[in-house]
Amino acid sequence: MSELSISSDGRDDPAAFRAKVAAGEAGGADTIWIANHLFLRDPAVLGALTLSQTQRLKVALMAISPLTQHPVQIAMAVATLAEQFPGRVKLCLGVGAPADLAAAGIDGAKPLRAMREALQLVRALLSGETVTFQGETFRVDHRRLAPLGAGIPIVLAASGPQMLELAGAEADGVLISAGASVPFVQQTLKSVARGAKGRNIKTSGLVYASVDDDATRANDRVRRILAILLRGAHHRANLDLAGSVLDQAALNAAVIAEDWATAEAMIGDDIVARHAASGTPELLHRRLADYHASGLDEIVIAGVRGCAQIEAILKTPRRNA
Amino acid sequence: MSELSISSDGRDDPAAFRAKVAAGEAGGADTIWIANHLFLRDPAVLGALTLSQTQRLKVALMAISPLTQHPVQIAMAVATLAEQFPGRVKLCLGVGAPADLAAAGIDGAKPLRAMREALQLVRALLSGETVTFQGETFRVDHRRLAPLGAGIPIVLAASGPQMLELAGAEADGVLISAGASVPFVQQTLKSVARGAKGRNIKTSGLVYASVDDDATRANDRVRRILAILLRGAHHRANLDLAGSVLDQAALNAAVIAEDWATAEAMIGDDIVARHAASGTPELLHRRLADYHASGLDEIVIAGVRGCAQIEAILKTPRRNA
Amino acid sequence: MSELSISSDGRDDPAAFRAKVAAGEAGGADTIWIANHLFLRDPAVLGALTLSQTQRLKVALMAISPLTQHPVQIAMAVATLAEQFPGRVKLCLGVGAPADLAAAGIDGAKPLRAMREALQLVRALLSGETVTFQGETFRVDHRRLAPLGAGIPIVLAASGPQMLELAGAEADGVLISAGASVPFVQQTLKSVARGAKGRNIKTSGLVYASVDDDATRANDRVRRILAILLRGAHHRANLDLAGSVLDQAALNAAVIAEDWATAEAMIGDDIVARHAASGTPELLHRRLADYHASGLDEIVIAGVRGCAQIEAILKTPRRNA
Amino acid sequence: MSELSISSDGRDDPAAFRAKVAAGEAGGADTIWIANHLFLRDPAVLGALTLSQTQRLKVALMAISPLTQHPVQIAMAVATLAEQFPGRVKLCLGVGAPADLAAAGIDGAKPLRAMREALQLVRALLSGETVTFQGETFRVDHRRLAPLGAGIPIVLAASGPQMLELAGAEADGVLISAGASVPFVQQTLKSVARGAKGRNIKTSGLVYASVDDDATRANDRVRRILAILLRGAHHRANLDLAGSVLDQAALNAAVIAEDWATAEAMIGDDIVARHAASGTPELLHRRLADYHASGLDEIVIAGVRGCAQIEAILKTPRRNA
Repeated sequence: MSELSISSDGRDDPAAFRAKVAAGEAGGADTIWIANHLFLRDPAVLGALTLSQTQRLKVALMAISPLTQHPVQIAMAVATLAEQFPGRVKLCLGVGAPADLAAAGIDGAKPLRAMREALQLVRALLSGETVTFQGETFRVDHRRLAPLGAGIPIVLAASGPQMLELAGAEADGVLISAGASVPFVQQTLKSVARGAKGRNIKTSGLVYASVDDDATRANDRVRRILAILLRGAHHRANLDLAGSVLDQAALNAAVIAEDWATAEAMIGDDIVARHAASGTPELLHRRLADYHASGLDEIVIAGVRGCAQIEAILKTPRRNA
Repeated sequence: MSELSISSDGRDDPAAFRAKVAAGEAGGADTIWIANHLFLRDPAVLGALTLSQTQRLKVALMAISPLTQHPVQIAMAVATLAEQFPGRVKLCLGVGAPADLAAAGIDGAKPLRAMREALQLVRALLSGETVTFQGETFRVDHRRLAPLGAGIPIVLAASGPQMLELAGAEADGVLISAGASVPFVQQTLKSVARGAKGRNIKTSGLVYASVDDDATRANDRVRRILAILLRGAHHRANLDLAGSVLDQAALNAAVIAEDWATAEAMIGDDIVARHAASGTPELLHRRLADYHASGLDEIVIAGVRGCAQIEAILKTPRRNA
Repeated sequence: MSELSISSDGRDDPAAFRAKVAAGEAGGADTIWIANHLFLRDPAVLGALTLSQTQRLKVALMAISPLTQHPVQIAMAVATLAEQFPGRVKLCLGVGAPADLAAAGIDGAKPLRAMREALQLVRALLSGETVTFQGETFRVDHRRLAPLGAGIPIVLAASGPQMLELAGAEADGVLISAGASVPFVQQTLKSVARGAKGRNIKTSGLVYASVDDDATRANDRVRRILAILLRGAHHRANLDLAGSVLDQAALNAAVIAEDWATAEAMIGDDIVARHAASGTPELLHRRLADYHASGLDEIVIAGVRGCAQIEAILKTPRRNA
Repeated sequence: MSELSISSDGRDDPAAFRAKVAAGEAGGADTIWIANHLFLRDPAVLGALTLSQTQRLKVALMAISPLTQHPVQIAMAVATLAEQFPGRVKLCLGVGAPADLAAAGIDGAKPLRAMREALQLVRALLSGETVTFQGETFRVDHRRLAPLGAGIPIVLAASGPQMLELAGAEADGVLISAGASVPFVQQTLKSVARGAKGRNIKTSGLVYASVDDDATRANDRVRRILAILLRGAHHRANLDLAGSVLDQAALNAAVIAEDWATAEAMIGDDIVARHAASGTPELLHRRLADYHASGLDEIVIAGVRGCAQIEAILKTPRRNA
């Protein structure tokens, strides 16, 4: 069975975040992936709190962007955390959401080189060796990181083919965004494999999840987040591969107008069935198994509010596993 | 009596850091100032651990640099922390040590404008309002910070006259570097006052401290860190004002050669007496009183290893206070 | 609106307990009442963990028995806890379940005098004064408790009329057992009032609770615990006052035989409706309001497993409050 | 090298206790032994706090008395703790100080049978099996402990020959009181060996410790606690074996009169040298080595206030080890 993990997108308030962490620890989640969306909550701080309140749950900081934090700062934060809680910390690098970068006046147009350099530089620093690095974007001159960071896995959050290949070629793991249909996951992993050339790399995927004895009610909970997500032009191939018929332009207009009735109505049960893991416990179990079979080592459930859903979802796969 | 606080420079290993925090909490320190020196430990992570293991001690993140982290990330981290531990978090912005910035390939030559913009932008974000900010270095377009950051004091770490004036004009507090003699503190605070134009601004100063029943042994503990510090050209005025005779070029050569016997020999008891708070408990108490009388609201003891010294120093001022 | 609190009966495993605590903190529960059932988990240990992982939630240790721990030990434990977490700790004294006491070879037949002495002795010790106490069961000769325990409320878990009068006369609060119908709560509080003679005393009651959009499913969750509880002869008056028709002998036989189908079938929806707070959110809200109107200042929801139910129940009363 | 552990006697206030724990964790102490002196602080509560604030340090609850807590409660507390922090908890049973028991009106005159039964009953309960136990003092009828307690070592605090033999015969370890001279430790361990008949049993001993570059000043710190301790008639053999000349009657009179000048003057450097581990770092190291050579597997330093001494003492043995 694949690993099952949970996530927080930085919108959980303090008490809700602590409740989610406790539900994840209680339910046997492998890792909590804590997001770094600009203007929301900070994952290094939340990761430190998580680790000091649990005994077992791991923490992945995702997706830390070298466009908003210097790789030396990134290495400092993750190594400080791992030194205090050995074996329980992962780093996931990623560019960040284009709209968020734009709102902070940051040019995220051509991130590939910066990302490759950040990956190499952070990895070198975490090794504990004295580092001299001469990149085009980042440089370090003969310095060594003080906190012990050896052994921290570095994962790359990737969606475009070049970033996926970079993950395959140089990272310890890859993280695929939410909303991907099973055929799209398979195509995505082919890009990773092209880069990996036989290297072993761990594959993780964010999957919006919802469970309810009433399948429609389960689906209702994920329609809006799918609407916000799938309107993006870069989801065309994902939709087409899955056979999902969706007027992205109309959906985008409804989302921008905050006309949620229209937007959610466009995300029918067939769309949910292809782009999330939602429904009765049996349906959820089957969907998670499908994602696993498509090549994901770790499924990171996302888009979930409240410990009730966390608890119910973490229970599900063990029913029939 | 002025507030007495402690600090960590990022060199304390995990257990030593936790012991220092516990000694500070036990000894009644007001705040632990946690440094952000490049390549050392991360203050946001350490701050989160500190707050989750204490009931009272406050945390100041110092000095967070907009040259290595985007102000949006800075605001996210400090607000996430303060939201979890209301009333116990301060932010101290600062450029960072020139040598560290250089080693990370970062140009820190003209930081004043970036610092002013960062101060204004972080403050705007922490207010919780929707922010549109059009600086030359930083921009934000109509976004609001999710975690609650209202009321977090923003302190500026400053040494040059312009930065000190900026602190006086726009920050909630100013932090003066270690090694300053009392006359230099007084001169420094004049620059702050010029900027403040009557505004009330809290003044804090890092002071290397050491205590022992044998004054020479106390002084021995701070000679090396004073040697490393005072060799810098920017300490000329500080030395001259204090009447300290020191061949900075020779000292610098000894430090670079790691010839500690020579370097430490150049930091005689007279230099220690003027640029640190060191000696017997009585001497320490008098020095802290002098720094207080020079205008510092809060003395942040620095350069201290081990809980024994923390414990002894925190006890001292109350003997005769 | 009355306070809403949660409870743990000592059966929650470590992860489930932490998840329950987090859900209580997140959902705004006032207090977690942690039980001291013999052979299950220890409330002082769990209370210390709870307080160190939350910022706000209070802890009540219930029901600590002077038949199994000397009042000096009881005072030590609760004061040690309160000294570390001021204002967040309550002590609830109680005899303990007769069957548990019997299984541990303890005679709990006439506990009234021991309980009165324990209440007086613990209160004297918590005051911080030097205590000399000459009871028939307990004695202390001129000693003072070291940890600071002043201000800790002492609640008495009571069901018989004499114990209820004792609570009214001498305790800071009274805790009524689960399963009480509203008319029985009212009768119970009359006994407390007889003892109180106008003193103000806080009234708290354990109430089995369950919520579900399908009322029958909600009720299903509490049938077994009600069966185990209501078969006891001391519940006759409670049943009669509520108009509940129940063959206690037959129920007892089914429970002893672990014939849960039969036992649960005897706890029909009408019994649940009178002796628990269960059903749809609207029904639950109404039941909680009824218990409140019957004179309870604080309702302590009990018999709940999993953070999902905690979360849902804590949400309910605010819908229409 | 023998293990080095620390202890708290229940007199440390909350902040001092946390500082001691942090210093122990930082300094590599194996275990913190937390005392259960009547009227002082509660070790189960402090143990829970310790374990939730450290990653490595073990906790031993000492000496939990079956005269003040029923063995079922004792098993509940230690198993609840160990279940949350596996592998980090030990239980030390002991009668308690006669004067404290007397002040609480408890008859501790003939504790041997109760202790043997408590040891057997607690061990049976911690095994996780269903227990039926028919002792003269304690009984349990077919019940099983819910929290997982398997593998928790049970140590017996012992000084009289019969209790030492019982420890040898039935416990996992023995704890010897403070103040014992090396010859007395050797004689004591012979009693343990008589009971053990070849069984392996871990030996731990409390040792008052103090360190200072000035040996007299080190000794000054332990004179009063040695005076209070060694006046007792049961220390006659200990004193005689060590060749220590001490007028116990006169010492007792001085202690009762709180005439500390006289009492401390009676504890000369020769007495300290034989009944504690005190002096310069070199002397301390040698004394710890002597105790180790006398047969102690673990030395538990006692009588220490403040993290400075903890830090200094934990450093010492590694100098020459």
